[in-house]
This record gives sequence, structure tokens and C-alpha cells, in this order.
Amino acid sequence: MIILGIDPGSRITGYGVIEWVNHKAKYIDSGCIRMDVKATTGNRLKTIFEGLDQLIGLYQPDVLSIEQVFVHKNPQSAIKLGQARGVVMCAAALANIEIHEYTPTRIKQTVVGNGHATKEQVQHMVEHLLKLSRKPQADAADALAIALTHGFHGPVLGVK
Amino acid sequence: MIILGIDPGSRITGYGVIEWVNHKAKYIDSGCIRMDVKATTGNRLKTIFEGLDQLIGLYQPDVLSIEQVFVHKNPQSAIKLGQARGVVMCAAALANIEIHEYTPTRIKQTVVGNGHATKEQVQHMVEHLLKLSRKPQADAADALAIALTHGFHGPVLGVK
Repeated sequence: MIILGIDPGSRITGYGVIEWVNHKAKYIDSGCIRMDVKATTGNRLKTIFEGLDQLIGLYQPDVLSIEQVFVHKNPQSAIKLGQARGVVMCAAALANIEIHEYTPTRIKQTVVGNGHATKEQVQHMVEHLLKLSRKPQADAADALAIALTHGFHGPVLGVK
Repeated sequence: MIILGIDPGSRITGYGVIEWVNHKAKYIDSGCIRMDVKATTGNRLKTIFEGLDQLIGLYQPDVLSIEQVFVHKNPQSAIKLGQARGVVMCAAALANIEIHEYTPTRIKQTVVGNGHATKEQVQHMVEHLLKLSRKPQADAADALAIALTHGFHGPVLGVK
């Protein structure tokens, strides 16, 4: 099973691709889709859509794993985050990819063992769990953590 | 100039298409893209994307006019609205359509002459301005009002 984890944002969208075989994770790819800060909102969203489209074409994921967002202090940021998130989920749905959502607490709990873990702790554990040679960039690490969470809890293991 | 006005929502997305010729509006089409309430979020967003894609293919609009959202009481609703809005703007950007945003106050001010107008007043004035034979459905009326706002204020008239 190929899992694509996405950490959407209005400036940077992190992605992480893993293969889940025999209850174990194998690292495939990770990185960031960076939006041109001078671009219009429409063109930023187009960049996310085209980036997702490329990743889906390249890795043919079975599942999109994405963070579930409940609260947001700033309503304007919530709208912007929602826009990026909507484009990601739409790109996956258009490719008939299953979408699974996990809360931030569950993701941190799964990867670090502590629902209130710091970003650094997530980066460290992602590096360790995927046997990477160096710490992944923060957004890519979050995306890999989201992908790992589906591996551990997703319906294939019958846990969910 | 063909203007596509969109009033995005997580359940119903209203659309209105007008032609702007010689400083006057001509009604072309309006209606709603309705999401299946039982569908997953991904499939709802896919419905919006495919609906937009059809409208764009059919009417070849020059401009997408959409409401600018500043505040939202409920952060969860803000995320959902953002998701629908993001998909709409992405579909337009992919088709290289110019996107213009107008605040709710400006839309009401333009169509009714009162920035705090009610939904009924907007429906009534849209019916009047476009010489419709009956009151349009509320979401379609909002979308037509958004399209009209671009007609009156958009860069073609040099007002913006």
C-alpha cells in the first residue's frame, strides 16, 4: 500500500510518500510544494493542484492521509488553510484515491507517543522510524508523520 | 465580457452567468451545484470542481467573480467554506480565468444600494436588474449579485 501524506498550507504544502508492507514503513519520497508568495490566490491553489497531480501520477498512491483540522484561532487563516486543504482533497478525489483524516493529537500520539509533542520531536521520530540519514524539513516531516499514522491505524490493519 | 459569479458553500454552491455589454448586464444562466449530503468531503469537493469545469466549458467566462470572506464566527465552518472556495478558485485558475474578489458589503451596496441589505432585498434587485420573470433561488441570486458587482466595478470600466 502506497500512502501519500499531505500537510497543506497556504504558503508551503508538505508531502510524504511511504510504502506500507508487512506492518512496516518504507520511505519513498518527501518534500514541499512551495507557493510563489507574489502569486495570486488562484495561482497558488493551481500550484498545489498541479503538484498533487504530479505526485499522484508518479507514485499512484492508494490512500491520501491528511490532518483533520478542528479549531483555528484566526478565521482568516482558517479560510486560507481550508482553501489549500480543499484543493488537495479535490485532487485526490478526482483520482479516485481514498482519503483518511487524522487529528493532530492522534498523529503526534502515533509517531512520538505524546499527543502534545513538539515539531522537533515529530521530526526526530520520523527520521528514526523511516531510517532516514538526516532530519527531514519540518513540513515534509509532518506529512510523513501523517502518512505513518495511516499506516499504523488505517483500515488495512483492521484497527480503524 | 462573460462574468461567472460564484457563491461557494459546502452544501450548495450558487452560480450566475451574465454578459456585460455596453455597461449593461444580460442574464445568461444561474443555478446551484448541490452536494450529496451523504458523500465524503472529497467527493463533495469533486462535485464542485466538476460543476465549475462544466460551467467554464459551456460559457467560456472571461472573469470569475467571488465573494471575499474576512470573518467567520465558527472556525469549523470557515475551514469548510475555505475548502469549497479553494476548489472554485483552483478550477478557474487552471482554466486561466481572471479571478476578482468583492466584499459582501460591496456586493450588497452595488446591487441594493445598502451594504447591510437582506437576502430578500438582494434577490429582489437581482430580479429587477436582470429583468427576470421570477425571483431567483437565494444562492443563485447571490451568485448573480457577485457577477453584477464585477460588471459595475470591474477593471473593464476602469473604475477599480
